[in-house]
Amino acid sequence: MTRQYLINQIREKGTYLCVGLDTDPSLIPPHLLTEEDPIFSFNKAIIDATLDHCVAYKINTAFYEAHGIEGWKALEKTVRYIPDTHFKIADAKRGDIGNTSSQYAVAFLQKLPFDSITIAPYMGEDSVKPFLQFEGKWAIVLGLTSNPGAKDFELQKLQNNSMLYEHVISKIATWGNADNLMFVVGATRSDEFLNLRRLVPDHFFLVPGVGAQGGSLEEISKKAMNKDIGLLVNVSRDIIYSSNENDFAQKAGEKAMYYANQMKQYLSF
Amino acid sequence: MTRQYLINQIREKGTYLCVGLDTDPSLIPPHLLTEEDPIFSFNKAIIDATLDHCVAYKINTAFYEAHGIEGWKALEKTVRYIPDTHFKIADAKRGDIGNTSSQYAVAFLQKLPFDSITIAPYMGEDSVKPFLQFEGKWAIVLGLTSNPGAKDFELQKLQNNSMLYEHVISKIATWGNADNLMFVVGATRSDEFLNLRRLVPDHFFLVPGVGAQGGSLEEISKKAMNKDIGLLVNVSRDIIYSSNENDFAQKAGEKAMYYANQMKQYLSF
Repeated sequence: MTRQYLINQIREKGTYLCVGLDTDPSLIPPHLLTEEDPIFSFNKAIIDATLDHCVAYKINTAFYEAHGIEGWKALEKTVRYIPDTHFKIADAKRGDIGNTSSQYAVAFLQKLPFDSITIAPYMGEDSVKPFLQFEGKWAIVLGLTSNPGAKDFELQKLQNNSMLYEHVISKIATWGNADNLMFVVGATRSDEFLNLRRLVPDHFFLVPGVGAQGGSLEEISKKAMNKDIGLLVNVSRDIIYSSNENDFAQKAGEKAMYYANQMKQYLSF
Repeated sequence: MTRQYLINQIREKGTYLCVGLDTDPSLIPPHLLTEEDPIFSFNKAIIDATLDHCVAYKINTAFYEAHGIEGWKALEKTVRYIPDTHFKIADAKRGDIGNTSSQYAVAFLQKLPFDSITIAPYMGEDSVKPFLQFEGKWAIVLGLTSNPGAKDFELQKLQNNSMLYEHVISKIATWGNADNLMFVVGATRSDEFLNLRRLVPDHFFLVPGVGAQGGSLEEISKKAMNKDIGLLVNVSRDIIYSSNENDFAQKAGEKAMYYANQMKQYLSF
């Protein structure tokens, strides 16, 4: 998906919501467990119910790998079920030496129809660049994450007085451009939003951490939106597990609409 | 596998070789491509031929994921085929927020019979700790990697004058111990071996970069071996692609023996 198409989708629909499919069979409605593929059945219903309120879906690969071959089948069916109007993110946090990263890029961006994959930056340039070689495909690199552990390394100060995450974002921005590169920025890091936008004014941010992790949609929207919106805000658990009963999909749709309605307000500023 | 069992295996066999199964169908002997599962057929023959010369196998998950469900099946068959006398490494470089890392730990350390998984440290404590909760299982965290990109972040100096990789290793060492934690240290980083051993005198290092990447087995062995050996040296391409003909397994076995014979000398010092 091109940057312009994504921006158009956001403007037309009035939402920059990404729905995170962290699907865990121990948390889905029990009546689905008798189906042939409970994970896909759940995802299909969630996608149908939330499609109008979001512009992206994020598939967290860990939740599928935890079920081996059956999980991988559900992942494939799910990504193929999402329509091409929606930006498809493999939240895989991959990254390895060049020839191995190339294999991951093939797996997610060529063999599977994902638009993008999340990348861990620790190993540097040759671990990131293989993901930037595909027309209309994106690398979404970890910048400043939402979890408590971000303080251990990401927020450490380097000798030049910048924090590691600042150096990571500035450096990686030189390896791609705003058409093939986004950054993960946790919604719980509101103190750093203005600084992050100063570092990369034009890039999209994928923002997890709203909902179960406690980040504020209002803060991220007010501080980090740019002239092209530049935000995909992800909500996973708070939407997909809205109800554990027969009405789970309807309730998920209502929760997605709740977030989308807030976004409509922030878009109108 | 316990630390003591691994050390005993190394001492009894006189080798600390790990064979890396980076199996790529475009590089395996063409006559295997007509088999039902070419990747597993190749791996099975390589394992049979190298078993006596190594103590560990490393499965690089990227090469399997690149083939979707078929690749995942080959991965499962391969790890189940490796006997329990050998230390099984999922070279997956995973790492995410706590609840997601837990799912990866389940995938590789519980559902699949891997002894260990490689971990990317960027996201900090809650991304690493879920892999340290299983008796006899190991997290192998990226320390200083063998690839050119290591200079971008790993070798950057922090304000306290230590390099990022030093801070990563020292910090992470406090979250586990030498019985459940190893570090990835690239064989191409010989200037740093003594320093690395000073940081963590007791931990095992998983050392890639010998062979195709040009690192020296002699240097790593002389500078980084500790009283319990403390090394697993991985060779992938240089062993498994020794021949592209009918004799591929035999040649791989001979190349593994070549490395093991060198290791016997270094063990005797």
